[in-house]
Amino acid sequence: MRAPLFDLDDDELARAAWSRLAEPGDVNAGALIAALGPSRALHWLRAAHGDAQTVRQAIDALGERVPLLRAGQRALSAAVARWGLRLTDLDPRREIQVLRSLGGALVTPGTACWPAGLDDLGAATPPCLWVRGDPGLSDAVSRSVALVGARASTAYGNHVAGELAAGLAARQVSVVSGGAYGIDAAAHRGALLAGGTTVVLLAGGVDRAYPAGNAELLRTVVEHGGSVLSEVPPGGAPSRWRFLQRNRLIAGISRGTVVVEAAWRSGALSTANRAGELMRPVGAVPGPVTSMASAGCHRLLRDGAAVCVTDVDEVVELIGEIGRDLVPSRGSEDGPADGLGPEVRRVHDALPVRTGAAPHLLAREVGLSEAEVRGALGTLELLGIAARHGSGWRKASDRAPRHEDSDG
Amino acid sequence: MRAPLFDLDDDELARAAWSRLAEPGDVNAGALIAALGPSRALHWLRAAHGDAQTVRQAIDALGERVPLLRAGQRALSAAVARWGLRLTDLDPRREIQVLRSLGGALVTPGTACWPAGLDDLGAATPPCLWVRGDPGLSDAVSRSVALVGARASTAYGNHVAGELAAGLAARQVSVVSGGAYGIDAAAHRGALLAGGTTVVLLAGGVDRAYPAGNAELLRTVVEHGGSVLSEVPPGGAPSRWRFLQRNRLIAGISRGTVVVEAAWRSGALSTANRAGELMRPVGAVPGPVTSMASAGCHRLLRDGAAVCVTDVDEVVELIGEIGRDLVPSRGSEDGPADGLGPEVRRVHDALPVRTGAAPHLLAREVGLSEAEVRGALGTLELLGIAARHGSGWRKASDRAPRHEDSDG
Repeated sequence: MRAPLFDLDDDELARAAWSRLAEPGDVNAGALIAALGPSRALHWLRAAHGDAQTVRQAIDALGERVPLLRAGQRALSAAVARWGLRLTDLDPRREIQVLRSLGGALVTPGTACWPAGLDDLGAATPPCLWVRGDPGLSDAVSRSVALVGARASTAYGNHVAGELAAGLAARQVSVVSGGAYGIDAAAHRGALLAGGTTVVLLAGGVDRAYPAGNAELLRTVVEHGGSVLSEVPPGGAPSRWRFLQRNRLIAGISRGTVVVEAAWRSGALSTANRAGELMRPVGAVPGPVTSMASAGCHRLLRDGAAVCVTDVDEVVELIGEIGRDLVPSRGSEDGPADGLGPEVRRVHDALPVRTGAAPHLLAREVGLSEAEVRGALGTLELLGIAARHGSGWRKASDRAPRHEDSDG
Repeated sequence: MRAPLFDLDDDELARAAWSRLAEPGDVNAGALIAALGPSRALHWLRAAHGDAQTVRQAIDALGERVPLLRAGQRALSAAVARWGLRLTDLDPRREIQVLRSLGGALVTPGTACWPAGLDDLGAATPPCLWVRGDPGLSDAVSRSVALVGARASTAYGNHVAGELAAGLAARQVSVVSGGAYGIDAAAHRGALLAGGTTVVLLAGGVDRAYPAGNAELLRTVVEHGGSVLSEVPPGGAPSRWRFLQRNRLIAGISRGTVVVEAAWRSGALSTANRAGELMRPVGAVPGPVTSMASAGCHRLLRDGAAVCVTDVDEVVELIGEIGRDLVPSRGSEDGPADGLGPEVRRVHDALPVRTGAAPHLLAREVGLSEAEVRGALGTLELLGIAARHGSGWRKASDRAPRHEDSDG
């Protein structure tokens, strides 16, 4: 076995190495690192990687120390074969060098910068994050919402994503998304324009802008105090698998996930489902039923997998603390007749505007007794919305209550 | 006491009289009629109506026979005063005459035409229905949906209401609504245009079109085998109270209620809430969050008071029978790579389209072992979506799977 190209006992280098060896979301790698630590796990892999006999012996030896991993012997054996292919020429110092040249930093679990929400991913927690821009992810996502959705978004979806993002920024809530075209880009831009913090999670390496057309956007995020990050080292290409795994990071890193527009089958739905599995609140923005770009949102609502959210107050309530962040009451726009009992209101409704009506005629009309009508008129007079007129009564028309489609 | 103008012992005339004496939804009248029958209840009212002393004696006498009514003595006493005002000149034969001159008929509880769903209203069940057009309400509403919503609807709402109504008509489901402008009219028209059955519930008498602009629509409903009905006798004016009570009839008579568009405060929401209280399924059609005309629908969805419905299949499922009327599955549009396991799919994703890639290089790229990649390639070759190319493999491009925003 050749000598390794770098110091395997350096925790940061070992984590960086693991993020290259194992594909995102590899729970065998996660369990091994959790059991042995990243450095000892690397040493073990170098020893184990060989013929089938060696692998079996190494797993047996491991099993005695880490009984948990014994159960998944077959899976671990296959994993060793996978990781082993990438051991050749492994040297994470190169990738760290690329990251530093971009002004970035490696963020590892347990440090002050680490976003603790990711620990909820258990064995699928990434070994490290490759971060450009602000490495202080822990602060950035302490109040955060993932706004996700279709690349093939509509003008409506882009508008709503931008408005929600701007509203969240104004409330010091960070906007997390995936840096893609469509809803993602509209969300990042909305946060930036409102002077807020936004975090971009990429499926490939942070040295390459994907999609290329969003390179300028990613640069702007970094320049404005946001973060662009990935669990894949620089140079890593995005693949469908990595997009799906990236979605678990978006769900895990943020306090809640809101889907703005999504087709019936959409990556944004996978983010929403991951968020639900992690017990994070999930919201969906409704849209026209005639728009296929909202079909995925409506699917989430039908399945009870998401709460219907229509404005920034409702989004903040979704991720907010109980007793705080509640949507302001919308019942406060009542007219003067709104708090009345049904019978008093019936009398008010029946009052003429110009001429006066006698109480006994009002009583017959609305189906109340004359005594009840006289009582109601007294109440209405006190409120200033009924007035005597000759021997009868009429509405005090200058303060007529507003009706909002109330007889529809 | 003057002799009555009509035969109080005629059940139909007595019910018609009660629909004039008591306002819609009067549970005291309902309880009295349920206890004594409509004729004896009328006799009792004529005897009871007088000074306070007489009322008290009559209620005491009643209480001995109908202990249930004893509890509400004060309410019953007030009710007698209300009803008594309308005893003067009471003669339902005039109103029945008006109804008959319009080709209509009185429909009473327990008859073959009576829509049994209204019995769920308990003491608020109307004493009778004044019906123009087809009196066979029982058949008409056996499979029915109430489509309700804002008068101030948008083009979007009108379009959706019309499409849903036409789709329901095509599935032999009757469309129930309130005959108002906006969503109601769009729903009735949609059903009529598709040759379906539609039922209009008015808040005022069936002899007057309300709103007047919908007179032609109501006439068309009657001419095309539908029904226009009210619990208020001919000549009765609509009032806000009657609109609210009419909404309980819409909720009760139909199998389920769907709100198409509604403002934050809207009569359509009262219909939805009544339907929910009656354990009828409630649906809400989402719309743009930028449209205030959909705010009430989104409110129902947020409150969990309605299921999100976006097309006629989902509406039919809402009111349908279990095991029948289910929404057709939408998972059947899968491409050939859709049923694959995640690892086989990762290999397929990584295959080049033009040149061939060697298995050991594919393995390094996707993070699988070479043996796993060779197994996956065998599967993909059998499916006809991978092919050998020189010493490597590539996608069989003529049957590439479709991706629907799957990496968004």
